Amino acid sequence: MKIYLAGPEVFLPDANAIGERKKALCAEYGFKGLFPLDTQIAEQSSARDTGLVISAANEDLIREADMVIANLTPFRGASADVGTVYELGLARGMGKKIHGYSNDPTPYTLRVLEHSGAASADQAAGELRDTDGYKIEEFELHDNLMIDGGILHSGGQFLFAQKKAAIESTAAFEVVLIRLSR
Amino acid sequence: MKIYLAGPEVFLPDANAIGERKKALCAEYGFKGLFPLDTQIAEQSSARDTGLVISAANEDLIREADMVIANLTPFRGASADVGTVYELGLARGMGKKIHGYSNDPTPYTLRVLEHSGAASADQAAGELRDTDGYKIEEFELHDNLMIDGGILHSGGQFLFAQKKAAIESTAAFEVVLIRLSR
Repeated sequence: MKIYLAGPEVFLPDANAIGERKKALCAEYGFKGLFPLDTQIAEQSSARDTGLVISAANEDLIREADMVIANLTPFRGASADVGTVYELGLARGMGKKIHGYSNDPTPYTLRVLEHSGAASADQAAGELRDTDGYKIEEFELHDNLMIDGGILHSGGQFLFAQKKAAIESTAAFEVVLIRLSR
Repeated sequence: MKIYLAGPEVFLPDANAIGERKKALCAEYGFKGLFPLDTQIAEQSSARDTGLVISAANEDLIREADMVIANLTPFRGASADVGTVYELGLARGMGKKIHGYSNDPTPYTLRVLEHSGAASADQAAGELRDTDGYKIEEFELHDNLMIDGGILHSGGQFLFAQKKAAIESTAAFEVVLIRLSR
């Protein structure tokens, strides 16, 4: 079984080392991990074309994979990294099982409140809005409902660290692998 | 042709009115617009279950649609709304054509710099990192490369307003409709 390892680790300084660590963990539990940086990308004539070739290569890796495990730890805001979320949707559309984990156990509603504030503290439940007047989701979920919903509807798991950990921590990731290997 | 109208408008106070306006524009150009709030959702026994039922209903609407036009105007950060991005990936995985527009013409690299800062102004090109040390994409694209790439690989269009406009502005959206109706 091949697992595509989606996540914002590609933006970290030691991206390749993290990828190797996650692939080694996959092997330990009988899986083959596919990391976005596995594909060698030749530099194209423009930065734009290079970006588009990377995108096509990642879509191909997801097509090759049997399932996805996405690192959905908040990235530059209250929600998961958008590139990771796109990949999760893509795999779901292809009919694959999608799984996720987050190294931040804070419920989504609280995270949005932390990042975007609330217009007024005494708003009625169900009508919580941020300072821009945008509705804040109150569904007791761990990210935008399309993410939690997609994972659960696919038959996948969405697991959270008990205690906040660094974005590259693999503790919750390993628990997902253990559960899938049973 | 049915078009699923993905976007963060669902979080705005006048979400239903915006949805009606976008559907009327679709009709004007010979399309049938499907807006996320079209489906009547019965309140479930828990907020969580209600959220999951909404997610399933939106996935069904996307399955029913022939294509997606996503409002990818930045939402609560430098990137598009994650729920919208999930839906874009989902439709792409289902083999549908996906289109997007943004009411903010600022290039992605600049938007990330504005939101997350840069660790140092004199970093070499290709090594731009934010204050957390996370790499900032420099591909001359309009959002994370998976978003631009997915749209272009599907044969879709990604259109930008010439001048920054409100998140609910339908000017760029209408240009996409005009192009698709030709």
